[in-house]
Amino acid sequence: MKGCVVTGLFVVFEGADGTGKSTQVDAVSATLRAAGHDVVVTREPGGSVVAEKLRSLVLDPAHEISPITEALIFAAARADHIEKTIAPALAAGQIVISDRFVGSSIAYQSAGRGLSRETIVNINAYATAGLTPDVTVVLDLDESVAGRRRVERAELTDRMESAPEGFQDAVRASFLAQVQAAPERHLVVDAAQTPEAITHQIVTHLSTKYGVCIA
Amino acid sequence: MKGCVVTGLFVVFEGADGTGKSTQVDAVSATLRAAGHDVVVTREPGGSVVAEKLRSLVLDPAHEISPITEALIFAAARADHIEKTIAPALAAGQIVISDRFVGSSIAYQSAGRGLSRETIVNINAYATAGLTPDVTVVLDLDESVAGRRRVERAELTDRMESAPEGFQDAVRASFLAQVQAAPERHLVVDAAQTPEAITHQIVTHLSTKYGVCIA
Repeated sequence: MKGCVVTGLFVVFEGADGTGKSTQVDAVSATLRAAGHDVVVTREPGGSVVAEKLRSLVLDPAHEISPITEALIFAAARADHIEKTIAPALAAGQIVISDRFVGSSIAYQSAGRGLSRETIVNINAYATAGLTPDVTVVLDLDESVAGRRRVERAELTDRMESAPEGFQDAVRASFLAQVQAAPERHLVVDAAQTPEAITHQIVTHLSTKYGVCIA
Repeated sequence: MKGCVVTGLFVVFEGADGTGKSTQVDAVSATLRAAGHDVVVTREPGGSVVAEKLRSLVLDPAHEISPITEALIFAAARADHIEKTIAPALAAGQIVISDRFVGSSIAYQSAGRGLSRETIVNINAYATAGLTPDVTVVLDLDESVAGRRRVERAELTDRMESAPEGFQDAVRASFLAQVQAAPERHLVVDAAQTPEAITHQIVTHLSTKYGVCIA
């Protein structure tokens, strides 16, 4: 594995629901592990004991939770997730791959639910204490396709995914705006490609730009 | 009840553990109800369905929760408490008496756990959207007495009250500093008095300054 030593790389996957994030998180982490990397796969909201409890609370359709309460709960979950899972793994030199991070809070709570972007950014500055992903992969897909995929999966069961029309379009637009604001820390991938082509594009980017080895 | 119409008064009780807050919340609310007032008694953390769930999570000794995660969870609980319980009651013209509010976050998370006061104030500005108590009653007691009371009650069962030595002194000092910063919105009561004398002092203040009637 000489030449393959990558220490403490923090990779985040973002995208609207139905863009194939989970599939790519699995495929990319498997590829990196096959190449000998030590990879920690995690997700938000959640990723630690307390954060998973907060996730269950927010996603429970029985609760009517306002946008600001939701934003504060997600920020609390993120603080715990970083302290218990992400920061220790990065400190140990592992590659951390997280399914969602701050970008989702900005997209879902500000673009999607009407809080100001500044509010989300400020609250999350306390939660992250400055930790920023090295690279955020944004899976981008036309909402008509993503919406069909969600229906096919029949996963309209939790509170977040039963959001009103236009919500997912706003979420997608927010992710693209985040990329424009910091292109050097993002990789946008056309999620209409085959899963294999998407995985190839992502691992090639990680290899070229961050020295990650592919078997 | 002519002359006793007080609409939307928000009264908060603060003080370190063992200063007799719960006793006074009960006695003062009973006195105001006996005089014909419509009184809603609530508490923090908690006071609404989601907030009570967050309270259970934070107070569970099984979880090791960092100061910033705790502060964000308490702020989320507060936002829900205000939206579901406090704001509707004030809008309906009721007197709301809350056992703890923002003052406790400042005292416990900043003075007691080392977060900056500014951090707590900023996070809570999002949670409260500017709602400030009309009057905060601070029950003040020498820590040697308060500590003995806590031991007598044998309530050293939850995570907050099993804090290290010096914590309760810092909490007490923070409450007194908050009073000094805004004396017009606080009433400090010597909690070494008899419960009856304390109740009398509080309701007299509410009557004199806010027009609350006593039967």
